[in-house]
Parts: sequence; structure tokens; C-alpha cells
Amino acid sequence: MDTLQKGWFTEFSPDDLEVINNAASGDSKQLKSDGVEMGGAWPGQAFSLQVDEVLFHEKSKYQDVLVFKSRTYGNVLVLDGIIQCTERDEAAYQEMLAHLPMFAHPNPKRVLIIGGGDGGILREVLKHPSVEHVTMCEIDEMVIDVSKKWLPKMAAEFGNPKLNLFIGDGFEFLKAHKNEFDVVITDSSDPVGPAESLFGKSYYQLLSDALRDGGILSSQAESLWLHLELIAHMVQFTKQIFPTVRYASSVMSTYPSGSMGYLIAAKNERDVTTPARTLTSEEVQKWGLRFYNSSLHSAAFVLPTFVQQALEGKQSS
Amino acid sequence: MDTLQKGWFTEFSPDDLEVINNAASGDSKQLKSDGVEMGGAWPGQAFSLQVDEVLFHEKSKYQDVLVFKSRTYGNVLVLDGIIQCTERDEAAYQEMLAHLPMFAHPNPKRVLIIGGGDGGILREVLKHPSVEHVTMCEIDEMVIDVSKKWLPKMAAEFGNPKLNLFIGDGFEFLKAHKNEFDVVITDSSDPVGPAESLFGKSYYQLLSDALRDGGILSSQAESLWLHLELIAHMVQFTKQIFPTVRYASSVMSTYPSGSMGYLIAAKNERDVTTPARTLTSEEVQKWGLRFYNSSLHSAAFVLPTFVQQALEGKQSS
Repeated sequence: MDTLQKGWFTEFSPDDLEVINNAASGDSKQLKSDGVEMGGAWPGQAFSLQVDEVLFHEKSKYQDVLVFKSRTYGNVLVLDGIIQCTERDEAAYQEMLAHLPMFAHPNPKRVLIIGGGDGGILREVLKHPSVEHVTMCEIDEMVIDVSKKWLPKMAAEFGNPKLNLFIGDGFEFLKAHKNEFDVVITDSSDPVGPAESLFGKSYYQLLSDALRDGGILSSQAESLWLHLELIAHMVQFTKQIFPTVRYASSVMSTYPSGSMGYLIAAKNERDVTTPARTLTSEEVQKWGLRFYNSSLHSAAFVLPTFVQQALEGKQSS
Repeated sequence: MDTLQKGWFTEFSPDDLEVINNAASGDSKQLKSDGVEMGGAWPGQAFSLQVDEVLFHEKSKYQDVLVFKSRTYGNVLVLDGIIQCTERDEAAYQEMLAHLPMFAHPNPKRVLIIGGGDGGILREVLKHPSVEHVTMCEIDEMVIDVSKKWLPKMAAEFGNPKLNLFIGDGFEFLKAHKNEFDVVITDSSDPVGPAESLFGKSYYQLLSDALRDGGILSSQAESLWLHLELIAHMVQFTKQIFPTVRYASSVMSTYPSGSMGYLIAAKNERDVTTPARTLTSEEVQKWGLRFYNSSLHSAAFVLPTFVQQALEGKQSS
């Protein structure tokens, strides 16, 4: 089934899309799992955006890459049928994933971004004057190329001299980098497709090894409405490696169920819920922060009761 | 266009649905306004739920009333094509809209609910042992009837002896009730259709008159992603009537853009962001609270930067 129909793009859960496609092709086979609680799945629900114009649609070596101009959300990047960012609401995700670990750290100098091909995380990290070097490892060069062309406000810093850009697999990259970074940010797609290896315990062991003493990580960690079992599992195994592990969340309009989670872990015992450096309202404006502020930093870690209970024992309330 | 197609229900913005219906009937007339920032509109985006079975579908005196069993969200109530609640995520909205004003008040005895026909707000209000009487004024009896039948966990307290139930218009009801209530909760649909009068300044003057000294109100106040202009307008005119006005928000999976806002106002100067009574984890569990807790009460008032800026001057940060 074409997800671009009658002027609308529809984001189905990958498992639902497979069933719909099988039905359309006369193949009655259903998926083994119904996908509930599987990371990257949201069975039985779908989100649609009205399309003004398809700007780019090709298959890269790794995934289907689509960019369209939407009627009300600006340009939209879609990978393997899943919305990655829209110009209208990208600030929420980019600013929270980047600034929660960056402001929890008193003096981040060396930063690693795994994924992040649209450039939004890079843009936010470089707002911190303490940063000397940013290393970025993105697996799919086509994502960077289309972002430079169609998402220029996100991809604005690819020419920054502080950036070392590597095209390759983040998991493999980490094996060769030990004790190097103050902050590591994993800005991945969902754990179906090229990012699957970035949701396992061995990946977090590599992250721990790559961080210097005092280092902090953040990772895209799915939706509390949809993937609570996966989130609890991630918190649990991360706690076996890191002395500090916390889960934060924010609203995020165009992600499934409208919310996004952030896993924050530190190599030392540390209160990551309180920023080590705070910004005044004037500084927030000067930095061009549309979503993050110092009060929101702490508030993002306060979780609804059902999430607290699911993570109980894995995170202090 | 039938919004129940191929086993999926699709919630279009009311203005988009009109354009789609006009196109289907060969009528090329477009809407005057494109609906951006109009309360109750979310042009260019749509949310869909997979339908297992349509349980009820009739027109009441006021609106189109639909209840269906969804594949992954339990039973779903839809009024005039707009999702009002699903069994899976209703706790977020019901608990926040009810408990923000109820816990901001030290001793709420008399409570008025305007709207709230599904019964969820009533269920939450009655968890407070201080409550002696709850008055509820719902315009559409059919909503109560279908909720009793198809949403029994929400409609569980309609037989409670503390309840005085009136079927009628909330705006008219308020004209005859002065200085009577400690808390007034407006649980309305969007400002298109029967709830339109509940979003204007004259309604808030009536609410002020209906509250006793020390009284607090909460109102459904739309999405920060979609209706910021309406929200800023509501905060502004409410400030002309009430000495305390604050805006809170929470995630809410099945509402447009996945978030919902709550306007909280008090007849006296009062810090409504700090609960006057707090609950321990054990009490939260005993009360059956799936979403609200005392820490989340305060966190809900911490807003993203772009929302703070839009409300600037109308709400202290």
C-alpha cells in the first residue's frame, strides 16, 4: 500500500503496514507478534500529514528516504515510512535530547553524536561554548545530503570546523574509541532497521567505555504510552553498567502518541535532573532555544504514576 | 466522506473534513479560514485508530455520537468526529483536569462539573473524602447513556448519592448559581459545536460568580502545539477576572498532537502550582491514580520556552 495517498502521507506502525501490504497483495499471512510493546511499533493507530509536494524519494543503501513539504508542518523527513522530524516541532526533540546531558555536565568539551544525520543535535550541541570538538557518526550519508538541501535550519552546522564527521556504523565506531568523550548522544531511529543494535546492553557497555570520567549519555528512548516494557528493560540493563540512570520525557507532536522519551545515564553518581549550569530567560532567548529551559530540565524527569510504577526499583522517584 | 473506512476511524480537523466532504460532493468551495490557531482545529494532520467493532452510532439532539471498540485503545467515545476519550489513556486527561484544582484547594466540599458526560471527572472528584456534594451539568444526556453502557469504568459513579445531575446548558445553569462552589471543572468538547460558549470571557465571569471565596477552577484548554493563540487569549481575559491564572499541560496520547492543556484560575491569590495536600506513593496507589501524583502536579505547570514566551506577561514563569 502506498502511504502517500490522495495528498496525505500516513505513518502506519511497521507491523500494521506489513499486514496491510500482505492483504493488498492477496497474501493472508499475519505477523507472528502483534507488536504491542515492541520498540518502534504502535499497532492499531496511525498519524497523517497533508502533503503539498514530494521533494525527494529514493532508497539509500540502508533505508527508504522521503522528504515532503507538508501543508502545516514545513518540510518533513521520513525514513522507512516513519517520521523523523518536521520543521515545525523538531525543536522539542533536538533540544531535549541534546541539552539534558549537555546541561547536566558542568563543562562538556568533547561530544559524540551517534546518528543525528539531520544535523539538529549537532546544531544544539555547538551552542555550548565549552565544546571544543564534536564527533558525529551517521550510517547513512543520504540522510545528511537531503537534510542539507531540504532541512537547512537543522543541517546548518555541517561546515563547522569543530566537527569531525564519520560515515559508518555507530556500534563499530565505538569499539575503537575509549575514554574520549564527555557527552555521547544517540539520536537514532527506532529499533527496527539500521538502528536495531543501538538498543541493546552491549551497546551501552561500549558507550560507558567511550565516556571519560564524569561523562553523561542521552539516548532516544521511545514513547511512555507505547513502549513501556522496552523502556523498563533499557533502564534495567543500563543500571547494571551506570551508577546513575534516569528517564525523562517531553511532548513531541509528530512522534507516535505525541511523546518522546530520553534515557540519561552518567558514569558517576550525579543528580542529572538538576542542570549543572542554568540559563536566564535572556540567555534562553539568545541561544535561540524554542523548547528547553532550565526549569523544564528538571520537570522532564517527573513522570506519570503508571510510568514510575513500571520503572520502580529501576529508578528512584 | 465517511471517517470510518476500511476498518479505521480517522479524526480529521473539522475544517479539513468540510473541505474533503465538499470535494467529494463536487462542491469546490473552500473554508474562509484555514483554521490555523482556531480552537478545535488541527489543519493538515489526522489521527487514526483501527476499529474492531462499531458499538453505537446515532445523532443526539446536539451532536453525532459514536462509540467503537478499537483494536488497541479499548472502547472509544467520539463526538462530532472528534475523539473524546479512550479506555487506554483517559486517566491522563481526567486525573489532571480534576486533581490540579482539587489538590490546589485545601478542603474542597462542593464541586461543580460542567460537561463531563462520560463520568471520568466525577469519578476522580469523588476520590476526595472532603467532598460533600458534586453537581454536574451536562447538555447531552445521550453521552451519559452511552458512557454508562460502553465506558463503565468512567461512568462508575453516576449512582453516587453525593451527585446532583442536571441535563442542560452549562452557561445557563451558571447564571442561577452564585457563590456556591469550591471547585468548578469545565470538561467540555472543543469550541466548535455545543461547547462554543464555554470558551469566552462572559463564561469566566459566571464561573467567578459561582465560586465561593477561595474557590478554584480548571478548564480543558486545548493543545500548546495547535492553539497557542487561543490559549494566550484565554489566559489574558481570565487574568482580568481572576487574581491567579496559570496554564498547565500533560501528554495525552489520543488528543490532536498528543498533548492537552489545563487552565487553572483561583478567586484569591494562591500558588496553585503547589498542591495544598500531597499524597504518598501508597496513597497514590490506594486512590487508584494511574497518571497524577504530587510531583507531577507542579511539573505540569513548567512550560516549554515557546509557550512561556507566548503567554509572557499573562503568566509569571
